[in-house]
Amino acid sequence: MKTLLKNGKVVNVFTDSLEFTNVLLEDDRIIGVGTYCDEDADEVVDLGGRYLCPGFIDGHIHIESTMLTPAELARACVSHGTTSIVADPHEITNVCGTLGIEYMLEASEGIPMNVYMMLPSCVPATPLDEAGAVLKAEDLKPFYQHPRVLGLGEMMNYTGVIHKDPQVLEKIKDARSEGHLVNGHAPLLTGKMLDQYIGAGITDDHECTDVKEAMERIRKGQRVMIRQGTAARNLEALLPLFEEPWSRRCLLVTDDRHPADILEEGHIDHIIRMAVSAGKSVFTGIRMATIQAAEYFGLKAVGAVAPGYTADLLVLEDLDRVKVRDVYRAGKQVVSQGKIISFEEPMVRPDVQKAVRNSFYVDELTAGEFHINPEEDSCRVIRLIKNQLLTDEWITELDFGRNNGVDIERDILKLAVIERHLHTGHKGIGFINGVGLQKGAIASSVSHDSHNLIVIGTNEPDMALAANRIREIGGGNVVVSEGRILAEMSLPVAGLMSEQSARELAKQNLAVRKAVQELGAREGIEPFMNMAFLSLPVIPSLKMTTRGLVDVEKQCFVSLFVQR
Amino acid sequence: MKTLLKNGKVVNVFTDSLEFTNVLLEDDRIIGVGTYCDEDADEVVDLGGRYLCPGFIDGHIHIESTMLTPAELARACVSHGTTSIVADPHEITNVCGTLGIEYMLEASEGIPMNVYMMLPSCVPATPLDEAGAVLKAEDLKPFYQHPRVLGLGEMMNYTGVIHKDPQVLEKIKDARSEGHLVNGHAPLLTGKMLDQYIGAGITDDHECTDVKEAMERIRKGQRVMIRQGTAARNLEALLPLFEEPWSRRCLLVTDDRHPADILEEGHIDHIIRMAVSAGKSVFTGIRMATIQAAEYFGLKAVGAVAPGYTADLLVLEDLDRVKVRDVYRAGKQVVSQGKIISFEEPMVRPDVQKAVRNSFYVDELTAGEFHINPEEDSCRVIRLIKNQLLTDEWITELDFGRNNGVDIERDILKLAVIERHLHTGHKGIGFINGVGLQKGAIASSVSHDSHNLIVIGTNEPDMALAANRIREIGGGNVVVSEGRILAEMSLPVAGLMSEQSARELAKQNLAVRKAVQELGAREGIEPFMNMAFLSLPVIPSLKMTTRGLVDVEKQCFVSLFVQR
Repeated sequence: MKTLLKNGKVVNVFTDSLEFTNVLLEDDRIIGVGTYCDEDADEVVDLGGRYLCPGFIDGHIHIESTMLTPAELARACVSHGTTSIVADPHEITNVCGTLGIEYMLEASEGIPMNVYMMLPSCVPATPLDEAGAVLKAEDLKPFYQHPRVLGLGEMMNYTGVIHKDPQVLEKIKDARSEGHLVNGHAPLLTGKMLDQYIGAGITDDHECTDVKEAMERIRKGQRVMIRQGTAARNLEALLPLFEEPWSRRCLLVTDDRHPADILEEGHIDHIIRMAVSAGKSVFTGIRMATIQAAEYFGLKAVGAVAPGYTADLLVLEDLDRVKVRDVYRAGKQVVSQGKIISFEEPMVRPDVQKAVRNSFYVDELTAGEFHINPEEDSCRVIRLIKNQLLTDEWITELDFGRNNGVDIERDILKLAVIERHLHTGHKGIGFINGVGLQKGAIASSVSHDSHNLIVIGTNEPDMALAANRIREIGGGNVVVSEGRILAEMSLPVAGLMSEQSARELAKQNLAVRKAVQELGAREGIEPFMNMAFLSLPVIPSLKMTTRGLVDVEKQCFVSLFVQR
Repeated sequence: MKTLLKNGKVVNVFTDSLEFTNVLLEDDRIIGVGTYCDEDADEVVDLGGRYLCPGFIDGHIHIESTMLTPAELARACVSHGTTSIVADPHEITNVCGTLGIEYMLEASEGIPMNVYMMLPSCVPATPLDEAGAVLKAEDLKPFYQHPRVLGLGEMMNYTGVIHKDPQVLEKIKDARSEGHLVNGHAPLLTGKMLDQYIGAGITDDHECTDVKEAMERIRKGQRVMIRQGTAARNLEALLPLFEEPWSRRCLLVTDDRHPADILEEGHIDHIIRMAVSAGKSVFTGIRMATIQAAEYFGLKAVGAVAPGYTADLLVLEDLDRVKVRDVYRAGKQVVSQGKIISFEEPMVRPDVQKAVRNSFYVDELTAGEFHINPEEDSCRVIRLIKNQLLTDEWITELDFGRNNGVDIERDILKLAVIERHLHTGHKGIGFINGVGLQKGAIASSVSHDSHNLIVIGTNEPDMALAANRIREIGGGNVVVSEGRILAEMSLPVAGLMSEQSARELAKQNLAVRKAVQELGAREGIEPFMNMAFLSLPVIPSLKMTTRGLVDVEKQCFVSLFVQR
């Protein structure tokens, strides 16, 4: 079946220019660009002078961070022109082990977006944490045979790389000996340490927050992935990279992006649009988002409008504003006038489906289980810092006789992290300052990177209610107060993702955020966002895990109580 | 073992710039670029402000065309900065079949130059020809497992590609399904035919002779290999490609280059030097010859001075003149002050060695075997065209009663092509105009692409003598006259290569050329060069094969005699 797309202004990513010409497709491929005519094709589409551009590639994304399944993410993203993503299923793998990778591969099969995978390199993120699985090199190895697996995901364990941890080096070796890539993640690493990290075979980074950092990486051979997500927004700082010689070593990525932002601002199109608004060339942005990403990842037939390439194509109404009208994926129209065309849900094998939908291995909790038996009056309290994921340690005296240490006047609430993967019964309980809740409790199954059950509350019964509700709905975010559920968003897939649409999810997310604001959350604090990082013992300085408080700098457990 | 190369002006191919800095090596790898000091290393080399540049890559070369073995080619090339070549052993494979590929792989193992291989795609070049082997897709397939095999060599059979010849498509499919490349060779192909050719998965071309042709290929996604060989010298015409956006899609290659040219002018260094002389940026040239070639061929750790890269490094005295002083290959110094450091000869297995050294399966020839029995007086004579490889057909009457048709006054000599691979006894005999010999005969085992034994002469006894001498020495070029051998160059490896040094070979080649000039060769004709293409029935219009004359346009055999 041959299709002629005629009268297009074709974006040529090899020459950064437009060609007013026709494009001939045969089934899923582009077979010609030039003076083809109606007679050459079975079907003719008149582009009416609109722009024809290769589909965009998001070079680094965690699907779980969108809280959408791959199919729902496609429904939200493809109409923004993203026809390929390179996903690291790090979060679901922390919950479900390799079954999480299998779920992601199966749940992304046949959707109108190419979903390539990088295998999660750091599960768990640290031995201080308790994830649903411990993934060794040999667990990852079989997945390299999958045609959509392109390498090893972001290597956060930079100390492991630098100190030549044999397990870490084995994972890198396996990826590279298959001809695959290893993604980097080493914020602020510089100089000789950076040389060691890069020298191990880690060829990109998406954590650059300033242009000097990015330029050092490019000089040393890495690709820089310019990230514009929901929390991390690095585009503005990295705009100088849109000039030569830097631009040819860059890709565009979202990393972590919430559904509301995708719906309201866009995806990769949004990044290009912002760069153009800042005075950069649209051709540079498109090149970063297409051929440069494809060639970096070794995708030989993706990222250009040229003979032999897969027909992943965007019809744009406006080039500089990157206004996507129609989208073709492998020659098949999947978006028409901005609307996604319905497609069949991917089939996930029942055992895989069952595994990701039953990710809570924890008994029902009672209020009493959130009670702390005081050993000393003086305690280590985690203190939130406005607009940051960093925390401080605050040592203060608590009155355990009154509400078991909770002190709403001084904004000291209770915090609990409950192991939910292996039914160990482990739980860490302590105190947190800076959230601002005046009453009630909140709970979530999204708590990086192990995604245990995390609860913050003003009282024990509400904490138990919130935690049990999360358990009941198989994961999500819940806000409760005085024995009532005020708002909830359910994330039943591994406790991380919903099967609802982006729009529905964004609505629920808004309701949850509103409810928690009404309980008194402080300005500059997003309770669920902040809570999601409270149990990640790699971000300084005091964090709570399933086995108690962790001093992040020292990388060891510390007692809640401080002897005077 | 750590080596510090300090006080260098390091050529950064990612940023097209110089960095005055130090480079730290560990064994074969670069492990750091920056403020490393003497204490960091076991050995310190002071570059004294000289330039440090990644080694050059020749993206397309036929080793056989240099007439040197891989080791001797390394001895000639590495001191010019070429540390990697991508070779297509098309010629030796036409003689020895897959044993030719094995020879090339073994004879290039461990030499101080990386020799990557592209598997010959067209053996024989055409079914009209008689090569030493017929290579099918299944014969090539096992070689893709070899770590130095990077793909399928130049696909000359463009009609096979366009008409979807199943054998041709299978070869392309095999290469690509292994993640490998397919080199192109489609001079002058344009428009829709070019789309079909590229669309089949052929991603480069080295046959562009003008910039318009090259730019069409780049627009359509191909890499253009800018060639500067001995016969084909395309650099001047393609100089505009050294500018953006074109330059980032180009490589530098030599294709076919004689030892004298390598010795006198250089290799890839010569191409960069010429481009700089023409006003182009040295950084652009170096980039084409290093990182761009490496990334195109999927060589992940080659082509840059950066952590993790193999330490293939050049110390240059002068950047713009690309004056190479020292060369490091995988961290080991292999050239010192312009002189190659001696290295061990590679080991070639005895059966492989025997196969390539016994490539003549033809009985001793008598003068009588060069006699033609006339059927008509009117004959088709091949007519050489000055400074071209093209030939014309000239129909004229010959006097067979006098010297069996040879007519020195009208410059009509006898030409014979004798099958030498399979002992078939096939031979084609006819006439040639334009060579100019007044007496004697010349013979060679280099006759593209099948490399049968080819002889041109003024008389039958000298033709037999020349042919038998070639047979005796196992291949080469010979000039005889009046029963005496005037000059010879022996090429005992498959009848194509010598084991002598480039210098020795260049000297012999000069002697042979001189001898043939003395026999009366015309101006604008290089008898051995022209003779080498007289039996290639893909270059128009009349050629001689082992089975007689071929009308190239019609692709069929034609009779020597023309009925009046």
